[in-house]
Amino acid sequence: MPHANRRVFIKQYREGLPALDDFGIEEADIADVPAGHVVVKVDTLSMDAWIRTTLTPGSFHETAALGSTIRALGVGQVVESAADGLAAGDWVFGLLSAQTHALLPAAALTKLDLSNSLEPRDYVGPLGLTTGLTAWVGLIAVAEVHGGDTVLVSGAAGAVGSMVVQLAKARGARVIGIAGGPEKCRYLLETLGADVAIDYKNADVAAGVASAAPGGIDVFFDNVGGEILDIALENLAPANARIAICGAISQYSDMGNVRGPAKYLRLAERNAAMKGFVVTHHAARFPEAKAEIASLMEEGKVRLPEHVVDGIDNFAEALLLLFSGGHTGNLLVRP
Amino acid sequence: MPHANRRVFIKQYREGLPALDDFGIEEADIADVPAGHVVVKVDTLSMDAWIRTTLTPGSFHETAALGSTIRALGVGQVVESAADGLAAGDWVFGLLSAQTHALLPAAALTKLDLSNSLEPRDYVGPLGLTTGLTAWVGLIAVAEVHGGDTVLVSGAAGAVGSMVVQLAKARGARVIGIAGGPEKCRYLLETLGADVAIDYKNADVAAGVASAAPGGIDVFFDNVGGEILDIALENLAPANARIAICGAISQYSDMGNVRGPAKYLRLAERNAAMKGFVVTHHAARFPEAKAEIASLMEEGKVRLPEHVVDGIDNFAEALLLLFSGGHTGNLLVRP
Repeated sequence: MPHANRRVFIKQYREGLPALDDFGIEEADIADVPAGHVVVKVDTLSMDAWIRTTLTPGSFHETAALGSTIRALGVGQVVESAADGLAAGDWVFGLLSAQTHALLPAAALTKLDLSNSLEPRDYVGPLGLTTGLTAWVGLIAVAEVHGGDTVLVSGAAGAVGSMVVQLAKARGARVIGIAGGPEKCRYLLETLGADVAIDYKNADVAAGVASAAPGGIDVFFDNVGGEILDIALENLAPANARIAICGAISQYSDMGNVRGPAKYLRLAERNAAMKGFVVTHHAARFPEAKAEIASLMEEGKVRLPEHVVDGIDNFAEALLLLFSGGHTGNLLVRP
Repeated sequence: MPHANRRVFIKQYREGLPALDDFGIEEADIADVPAGHVVVKVDTLSMDAWIRTTLTPGSFHETAALGSTIRALGVGQVVESAADGLAAGDWVFGLLSAQTHALLPAAALTKLDLSNSLEPRDYVGPLGLTTGLTAWVGLIAVAEVHGGDTVLVSGAAGAVGSMVVQLAKARGARVIGIAGGPEKCRYLLETLGADVAIDYKNADVAAGVASAAPGGIDVFFDNVGGEILDIALENLAPANARIAICGAISQYSDMGNVRGPAKYLRLAERNAAMKGFVVTHHAARFPEAKAEIASLMEEGKVRLPEHVVDGIDNFAEALLLLFSGGHTGNLLVRP
């Protein structure tokens, strides 16, 4: 029985932010399921900043070929299987992409552990590779946060930022979040429990960070880059601060002209480190990360509010929302 | 008996590189030696890039007051003592500054260990805080070099760079040095044993690094900053590379307009770290560093050629030489 698949593909490249007419939508049947493959009905897609970097030639992630389905991570349920180890009804995580049905080798998918009242959507949420696990790895494995640290988080109201704020609080740190607008700042303080929220759209961030952290920043988790990275460098603690470079959403629209941190010599002056990370390079620590996050969820100390966009036809619009900052928490598309 | 002291002081501040007429010279007697103090006859001064940063207001190191003696580290011999623990004839290391005689509290000085045929000048050379120890800490404690690593060193023909090249070779790394001019490149290859030398004045550094390190750079020890730092970032190994930020001599003349590394997102893409360091923060490892360097000196595997400028009146000229790259190896002034 063929599966009708509706998919969103890239029609044309563009310098700068993508626009709606760079995307096309079409429907086609998945008829044959080769041996070793399965068909997955896509349940939820994780809207991640890295997707943007596949839409321009020459960027870090492999560029999407014109006509190809926009790549995205997601969870879904197997509806047909020609592979050992996966059966219809199984829930999986993988690169399901912007479509309603994905035909993929079973080897490219991870079967979800739904014990202990975990739900499929947790795997694009608090336990997601690009959300909760990225936050845990950057904050704990890379930046080695300690109780008593002062932690600064940029993009704090996004999916990764929301998790970082809560994980840092759970580890006993003092947390300063930066986000855009009073509503997001209220979310940081009231929903996530941040100690201080700085509204970069309406406040002087440099003054805000300096006054919120008179003793300096021990850990900076950066999702944004640009001026905010320089402000963090300028406000590093006198010694041994750690910066985790998770992303630089302020710079993705013009990767040929990235603003480098002019204050990087503060690293040398203050015996500090700036560390990038590829979350999958830290896979050895995923079991520890998952156990900690799952237990914090159970205790009610970690939650990740969702902003859900319904319908695969709205995928492109949701992607643009990610860059306009028009969401709070975890931006998801449900085809 | 008063000691006639001839000293070099700062007459005026200047944006950009200092010029000879920013410095004055005068002679004055040291008559009184307060309790706890000693008079040191300065033997040799270490010409370090950080000195430059004391000559402009607002830079990292405390700015020298107009009229004050230019700060510099050095070794010398006690000629009069009003302190317990130091006697005339003892050799010491400390902030002796640009003068022939220094009046200092004994507590600010370190008595030299001259056992095992070590000489006073070794303490502003292979064992110097700002030379050999800085090289060891950056390469070994901070960048954690391993045998088999490909190591790139900028400013490789300077005092720190020369030590880094030799220490990395002794630890079993492959070493690529960057320096200015064919003579310095010959020095890297023939005197220090570097595997590859790149002449930034006459060659395309980006092409040179890419072809010398097709598998990428595991460790970059940076003394220079600017474009070379971006080239190193662009050529980092696919994973786990370490950059030690020791200095940025290319940027010190205009610290208000430092060029930040536009390629810093390679850190995130390649799971790499960029670490600054303050050498004294790693003092716990100095005994290990000194033992390793002294033993390599004894085996003839490490030497640090000197470029000696004689006469305290030539101090300012020597300082400018440091920034014009007009020396090879360890630039010293002997008052």
